[in-house]
Parts: sequence; structure tokens; C-alpha cells
Amino acid sequence: MSEFHNIGLIGRTESDSAVLSLKRLMAFLKKGGYEVVLEQETATGVSDHKARVSTRDKLGELCDLVIVVGGDGSLLGAARALAKYSVPLLGINRGRLGFLTDITPDEIELKVGEVLAGKYMAESRFLLDMSVTRDGKPVGKGSALNDVVIHPGEFIRMIEFDLFIDGQFVYTQRSDGLIISTPTGSTAYALSGGGPIMHPKLDAIVVVPLNPHTLSSRPIVVEGSSEFKVIVGEHNVALPHVTCDGHDQIITEPGDVIRIHKKPHRLTLIHPIDHNFYETCRSKLNWQNN
Amino acid sequence: MSEFHNIGLIGRTESDSAVLSLKRLMAFLKKGGYEVVLEQETATGVSDHKARVSTRDKLGELCDLVIVVGGDGSLLGAARALAKYSVPLLGINRGRLGFLTDITPDEIELKVGEVLAGKYMAESRFLLDMSVTRDGKPVGKGSALNDVVIHPGEFIRMIEFDLFIDGQFVYTQRSDGLIISTPTGSTAYALSGGGPIMHPKLDAIVVVPLNPHTLSSRPIVVEGSSEFKVIVGEHNVALPHVTCDGHDQIITEPGDVIRIHKKPHRLTLIHPIDHNFYETCRSKLNWQNN
Amino acid sequence: MSEFHNIGLIGRTESDSAVLSLKRLMAFLKKGGYEVVLEQETATGVSDHKARVSTRDKLGELCDLVIVVGGDGSLLGAARALAKYSVPLLGINRGRLGFLTDITPDEIELKVGEVLAGKYMAESRFLLDMSVTRDGKPVGKGSALNDVVIHPGEFIRMIEFDLFIDGQFVYTQRSDGLIISTPTGSTAYALSGGGPIMHPKLDAIVVVPLNPHTLSSRPIVVEGSSEFKVIVGEHNVALPHVTCDGHDQIITEPGDVIRIHKKPHRLTLIHPIDHNFYETCRSKLNWQNN
Amino acid sequence: MSEFHNIGLIGRTESDSAVLSLKRLMAFLKKGGYEVVLEQETATGVSDHKARVSTRDKLGELCDLVIVVGGDGSLLGAARALAKYSVPLLGINRGRLGFLTDITPDEIELKVGEVLAGKYMAESRFLLDMSVTRDGKPVGKGSALNDVVIHPGEFIRMIEFDLFIDGQFVYTQRSDGLIISTPTGSTAYALSGGGPIMHPKLDAIVVVPLNPHTLSSRPIVVEGSSEFKVIVGEHNVALPHVTCDGHDQIITEPGDVIRIHKKPHRLTLIHPIDHNFYETCRSKLNWQNN
Repeated sequence: MSEFHNIGLIGRTESDSAVLSLKRLMAFLKKGGYEVVLEQETATGVSDHKARVSTRDKLGELCDLVIVVGGDGSLLGAARALAKYSVPLLGINRGRLGFLTDITPDEIELKVGEVLAGKYMAESRFLLDMSVTRDGKPVGKGSALNDVVIHPGEFIRMIEFDLFIDGQFVYTQRSDGLIISTPTGSTAYALSGGGPIMHPKLDAIVVVPLNPHTLSSRPIVVEGSSEFKVIVGEHNVALPHVTCDGHDQIITEPGDVIRIHKKPHRLTLIHPIDHNFYETCRSKLNWQNN
Repeated sequence: MSEFHNIGLIGRTESDSAVLSLKRLMAFLKKGGYEVVLEQETATGVSDHKARVSTRDKLGELCDLVIVVGGDGSLLGAARALAKYSVPLLGINRGRLGFLTDITPDEIELKVGEVLAGKYMAESRFLLDMSVTRDGKPVGKGSALNDVVIHPGEFIRMIEFDLFIDGQFVYTQRSDGLIISTPTGSTAYALSGGGPIMHPKLDAIVVVPLNPHTLSSRPIVVEGSSEFKVIVGEHNVALPHVTCDGHDQIITEPGDVIRIHKKPHRLTLIHPIDHNFYETCRSKLNWQNN
Repeated sequence: MSEFHNIGLIGRTESDSAVLSLKRLMAFLKKGGYEVVLEQETATGVSDHKARVSTRDKLGELCDLVIVVGGDGSLLGAARALAKYSVPLLGINRGRLGFLTDITPDEIELKVGEVLAGKYMAESRFLLDMSVTRDGKPVGKGSALNDVVIHPGEFIRMIEFDLFIDGQFVYTQRSDGLIISTPTGSTAYALSGGGPIMHPKLDAIVVVPLNPHTLSSRPIVVEGSSEFKVIVGEHNVALPHVTCDGHDQIITEPGDVIRIHKKPHRLTLIHPIDHNFYETCRSKLNWQNN
Repeated sequence: MSEFHNIGLIGRTESDSAVLSLKRLMAFLKKGGYEVVLEQETATGVSDHKARVSTRDKLGELCDLVIVVGGDGSLLGAARALAKYSVPLLGINRGRLGFLTDITPDEIELKVGEVLAGKYMAESRFLLDMSVTRDGKPVGKGSALNDVVIHPGEFIRMIEFDLFIDGQFVYTQRSDGLIISTPTGSTAYALSGGGPIMHPKLDAIVVVPLNPHTLSSRPIVVEGSSEFKVIVGEHNVALPHVTCDGHDQIITEPGDVIRIHKKPHRLTLIHPIDHNFYETCRSKLNWQNN
């Protein structure tokens, strides 16, 4: 018997291919005798189904496993919503492999079947908690599996801020902003910004400056337990914005304090048994190909 | 006798130090028998003067030399406005040396005196003309001494576009945007973005991708006579914006065509006789210092 | 009638595939009534041929066109040897496309046929001349189509030197060395070292520091007519070496002067009529692929 | 009473300033009643002293604290020699601050006095063990506090090798080599090579490719407990060399296996009580200065 019985499903139903994959997956699960719970929004996009429907939050309570059909972005959203529950996530990509969604549509029966049969790799990933305070009072917060980005909102306006790590002053920086990224996020936006690749198992956070005015400013990797504090500068033309995985945008004001640290709850990510991080790198970054 | 007689003055009057420098400069010029013409906006910030006042455009017609007191940004603005006239520009920085404004306030009498006495270096710099067309009709245009930047307007949204140089397809790119920079701009934003330094005399333009998704995408340097065409992608979440030296923002729509090429008129930039480009690099980029 | 009648052939005969391509090419040329001249070393590797044999130098005098079968490295060698003659070069790659050798083995008859019929693109590329003097006396020299590299010979020993461009002091640098590259070389070693891509038509030279101690040291692009002077530092643990396209190694001593400037003779490189620089970039740098 | 009584001294006696600092330090220690033990080689460079002399190894057994007078390189050497003993190291720089030697000569009495009085910060740093095997038999080994570097020995010859981390194949790489660096080494050669800064407390190792042929190859940060295996390629023109902190050079042959992992013994590094890693970064990397 599988350890997973109640299976939640979340999908991007704007795309026909994702809907097709969802239906194929539902058929496979029902045939296997699993209880399928469709996430509410997903359900509206899937015509003619007879599955139980539930809110995203309820999914976390009801299910032993949640399968996300979509790109890495869909899985990021599900991870942020379900982080407080202990339910593990499995990702099926609509197209080719992603870093987080590493089952392709044509492998659904084979790979999901293996996972349900207990042949899988479970990986624990940490998230970041971000909060903004103004004059000591909270004005906003968010969670991120990939990264917290501080940026000018509007482009083409450098922002200025002070960075402190574990209470120590690091620097006053003028740049297009700052990416504070988990190992999970290190192969996403932080990589485009010049950051290093960090192995998913590493307990570390990287700070990547975006197009810094000071050319000797470089990515800094610190322990996962580090506490980050960013104080928004007094003389910014553009008001710095903060986003979590590109969402939950908060607009800051001069003197605001942005705090970032590891979230107490972790995400369990399920991979097929033959998953290999470096193979995904080789494939997605074209390492073998020139 | 000096070849310069009618001297135009433009300054950033928000800053007290710039106003002080302007007054010091006006006193020095009047004592030397020069005709001083104050730019209109500048004049409102300088109390109690008896100089002739004129619009920025008229300055180009009336003067043999225009002196700009401010940062590199002030000189960029003056250059764009006066590019169609043949009047040369000289820059006085409020604080320490800039790449374009290379006389410091305490050297005003000495260095400006030398320039007026004919001891100076004249450098010809080219500008870029940018235009946007939609369905073949013009929707906006601008000029830049530093750079034309195509960006998502809003941060945290990659944009997609096709780049053509001299009619040849270069690539479809997904990135935070593109900097198309003159040698003058190569030590400004393009440098923060990872571009090379280009000597001011070089007749070349550099294309610098901003945080590109494809890691092997690199700055490309092409001839100054090159014609750039950027076609805005059909599937952009954020509407790409175009700016010239950080100004004249135009918001594009899918299918819009952005064209960039060298402006027919060039700027003459006046430097003190002992000016040395590499010395400015060493000083501003801290090359000798670690 | 073709403008090319006497065709010189140079090939890397260590590889069986190159020998096969050479024979296929010789058969094709003889059938077309062309006079084939085999370069001496190449001839020893091709058994059982009846072609005229000549030294590399004579090839430059006798031929209207020289075809090189091999990698980009083979073409670099032929270019350095034949630069003083006006004979154009055409490159056939043994495997997939190179930046300089852009005909693949299976296209020999088609593409070479087109070139001989006058359907081709001729491109003028410049080379660099390098010389070393000690106490004013010459101690060595060389030519490069790609790059002149100054390096510690032994790895893991930083070297120190002063760089001057057109008589102006640029910097004292401590690094693994310096690449001084033509546009042709900009897609070779200089690119791995962090330099920009330069279009082949650009009349410019790039200076790329190799792993510099000073993090703000960046590639510098200057006019093709620039004169470079590097003075070897007095306190180097390792004696700096100079190489041209990775050949002609000269070992310098403290105080030696390395001079580099554009060679008076240029190389004419022949491409198939449909050649497109950016297409080669897309293919070899995987621009479209992730 | 101080916890430190027997104080070992190691210094670079080629430089007069280091000898002066050594003498000043010896006088200070004798006055305080401490037992001073001079390292053998150091002793030959210090004329007219009456201190006990001992081999470097004995120093590790005899002393409670070893003070190194010199640059970061001197401290690296002492660390490699003394790593198997538990004796902590303190560094005095001859000139300005280093990352490891963070007391300046004119602060000797003040700062060393504070350390001896118990006011100090102790930091645990890990080293790397490297070994090379050929056909299963050991052919060489070494230790590194900063980095293990695999390189072509001779410059200008790319090398090819396979990298495995924890048994997983990472890539076949063609490049100038590979830096495998501790957090301690991340501000040294690895930084010039494009690696990130890693906080000294981080339990991680970074792999930095040197001028890789594949442009999308990037620094990779993995757990400190990772096991690295590099298999030397069969077709290398240059024989890859391996060095530890730039020393102990081993020349490899095709098929040789290079293994690198964390050393069981750690180094205790003593800092003045007000030491701050980010302040050293700001000072040495000119972060505040442009």
C-alpha cells in the first residue's frame, strides 16, 4: 500500500497542455484507487470532472501529497501557500524539465506510479520569511522559496540602502537592487544576476547585488541561519519595492526596515528516484553542448 | 584674445554648492570681460545677478562655449538639448571628478582660465537617436549621449524581444532588458551591467544584456555606424519601456519597432589640457587601490 | 571562368577525417580543371596523390586561393604564415562549424563550388604584430590573428606589469596576465576570459585582464590603430611569457618592453555567400537553446 | 593569568620590516613574562636574540599560541604545517590589513596585549586534504587552507577533466583549470576567478572554473562535507598540475584521480576582539570608495 492516499492537484489551467496533463493524471490516480482533491481555482478550469474540490489551504490539511502541474512558477506558488502544512509536493512540467518540476507529461504514469509505489527521493527545502516595518510597526510580509528581491519598482533608478547581516554592517549600496536567494532560487533569477549555483542541500543564503555601482561588489554566501536587515536609504528617487518569488509586492519608504530570515517550516519536495541535480544543470544550462 | 567670448552657463541650482560655484564662475568671467548668458531655469536659482538670461535653445545659438556646473547627469541633459548646435560644452563638477565634468570647484579660475586662453583638449562625442514606430507610424523618439535602455518599466518582469543589427537577426532574448551604449556611456550604467570600457575616441556601440536568462549571452561591440532594430515580443507580461540617458520614457506595445542609430550631429566636449581618460578611470574605479 | 585558378591546400593530416576531406576536395578541384598545390607537410600525410607540392611560403606566391582543412587553429596558423601575401583563405572544418572554418565536410562540393563560381563573401581581418625589446635591443617577435597573451608561463604565479596605450599610462596590474585580442580573437580565449564579442568588421582591439587582483579591472576596447606597450615589472617571481595565437612563446625579463600594434598586411577571409556572423554565435554559444 | 604562556613566533625574515616587528614583539612578550619559542628558520634571520629555538613541528607541540608575522601567505604556510596540532594562530601583517593577518605593526602591544589578556575572537577554519592516485596507487598529497587549484602548469593550454561531487557526475570541462576553495580562500584567488565571497563561518566549498570554454559554466557552492573527485582527461596536451595554496605541486597523468575533501583537523584563528569580516571586505575591496 502507498503511504500517499489523498492526492491534491493544482494546475495552471490557462494552458491546454496543462489541462490535458491534469486529466491524464486524474484518470491514472482514480484507476489506482486514490482519492483526488482538486484545488478550487484549478477545478474551474477542468470541465467535467467528478473529483472533490477544496481551497488551497484545505488541500494542505486533507492531502498526503500535492501534485503541481505547470512550470517552476506554479510550484513556487503552491510551496508558499502550503509551507505551513507538512504535505510534500511533486511537480509535473508542461513542457521540458524544470529545476522543481522534473516529470515530463509523457512520463506521468511511469514516474508518478513509481513515486506512489514508494520509489522516490524526498528533499527538504527551506523558505525565507520577509517582513517590513515602518517606525517599528509592521507594514507587510511574505514568504519565498526562491528569493526576496529589493528593487526600484520602476527601472532605471538606482536605489540606496544599508545591509546588515547578523547585526553587522556590510555596506551601503547603490545598485538596481539586491537578490537574497535560497539554494532553490540560486538557479533562477540570482543566476542571471551573476550569483553562484548552490546545491539544494546546502544550508546557505546568497546575497546578489543587481548591477552595483561599485564594481568590486560581489555575491556573498552566508549561513542559512543568518538574519538580514536592509534599511531603506533616505535619499531614494524611486521607492524601493520588495517582492517574494516575484509576488507580494511591498512599496517601502525611507527608513523602513526589511528583515529576512529562514522560515521555521520547510518544504518537502518529491523527485523521481533517479533525480540528479547536476543532470538538470547540464540539461538546462547547456553545459555539455559547446 | 580668446576664441570664446559669449559664455553660456547651466547649473543645478537645487544644491547650494553648485550655486556658489556658479557665482564664483560668473565673477571670474565678468572680470575677464566675457559676456555671460545664464540659462533660464538656472537664472531663477541664482539670486541677485545682472547677467543676460536666455532659454536653453537660444544658448546654443548665442554662445561660443557653454559651461555646465553639476554632475555628469547635468552635462548629459545639456548635451541632448544642445547637440544640434555646434557649441562646445565644458563641465565643472560640484564635488569630485566625473567622467564628463572634470574640473573641480576649487580649480575654477585656474582651469577655466586656461581653457579660455586656448589651452584645452576638444573631444568629439557622438550621440544616439532612438525612435519607436507602431504599425509603421512614429509614436516617440529621443536622443542619448550615454545610452538607450530597453527595460520592463516595472522590475521583476523579464521582457522578450528580437534584436537585429544592420538587418541581421541577432537573437530573441529574455532578460531584464538591453543597454545600447556609446563609448561615453560605457563607463556609466553599461559598466554596472557587465559591459566593457570603451575609449571615448572609439567609433563603436556596445549592446549589453541585463541579467539575461541565457547565461552565454554577452556584451557585443559593433561599429558606430550600425543600425539597431528591436522588435517588442508578443507575449510580454510587462510592456517594455525605452529611455534615453534615463529620460524621455516611451512605453511600447507588442510588435512595436525600436530603432537606434548614431545621431548626425556630434557633441564637442572641452577638457583641461592635462585631461587623461585612463587617469579618470584609475581614480573613479579605484584601479590602483587594492 | 573563375577568378581562382591555382588553389593551395593545407590540412591537419593527423586526423583521418581531415585527410578524407582533403582527398574529396582534391578530386573535386581536379575534375573542375583547377591547378592544385599541396603544402609540403600536408603532402606527406596524403598518400598517393599527383599534385604539385610546395612550401607554405611558396603557396602564398603561387596561389589565388588557399583552402585550409582543419579547425580554427589550423586556419590561424595558415593566416600567420600567409599574411604577407595577398592570397585569400577559405576554411573547411573537419567537424561542426567554427568561427573561421565555416564549411562542413559534407558541403565541400556545394560550397566550394559556389565560392569558385564567384558566389562568396570576402572579409578583411587584421592581425597584430608583437615584438619584445630588452635594453632597447630586439629579442623576439610574432604575429597573431586572434590574440597576444602575456602570462606567467607557469600557472599559479601572478605577474605584474605596466600597461600603456598610445603613450598614456593605463595601470600597473597584478593578475594571471593580459589578453590583447582582435575582433577575430574576441570569440576565442578572450571570451572565456570575460571579454565582449566584437563584430569582425569592427576596427578595434580589446584588452582583457586574466583573473585580476583588482576586481574593478575590466575589459577595455580601444581603436584598432592603438599602440600598446607593456613593461614587465621588476619583482615578478615568474618570468612573464608572451604568445601569439598560443605560439611563438617568448620569455621576458624584468624591464623588457612588449609592443603590440596592428600589422600592415591584412588577411582576406572567404566565406560562403550565406555566411552570417550572428548565426555562428547563436550556434556555437547556444544562444537560442535555454 | 593568561591562558597562553608559551608563545611560538614565525616570521618572514627576508623583509626588514618583519624582522623589526618580530623584535618589537619579542621584547613585548619577554617583558610580560611569556616564554618565547622562535621557529628555526625565523631564528636564523633574527640576529642577537636569546629565545629558545625549535622546528616548526615542535612549535605545534610546545606552544599555546603561535604568532605569525608576515602576509596572508605566511599564515597559510604556518596553518598547513600546524593544522594537526591544536595550537591557535594569530597573524600580524607587515603592512596594511590582510584577511588572515589583521593586526598592523604599530598596534602590536595594544592588540597582542588584549589577546593575551583573554580579549579575543577565536574562529575555527577548515582545511582541505588533497590526494592524487594513479592506477589506484597514491602519487602525492597536500593540504590547503585557501584552495586546491588544478591547472595546466604551462599557461595557454586548456585542460580537460571530469568532475564528480559525492559520486555524482557534474561535467566534463575544458578550461584553464578549476579552483576548489574553502570560505577562507574565497576572498583570495577564487575571487579573482569570479567566485562568490563566502563568510568564514559557512561550512561550504566552492568550485570555480577558470576561464571555461563553456560560457554557462558557473561557480558551484556545495556542503563542506562534500567529496570531490577529478579524473584527468585522456587527451590533454598539457599535463594538469595540482597545487595546495600555491604549493606542493603535483603533475598528473591521463587517468589520474584527484580527490579533495575536508581535513579532519581544523585551524583555530585568533582575531582581535573588534574583528569584523565585513569591515575587512570593505577596506580591502574598496566597497565604500566610489
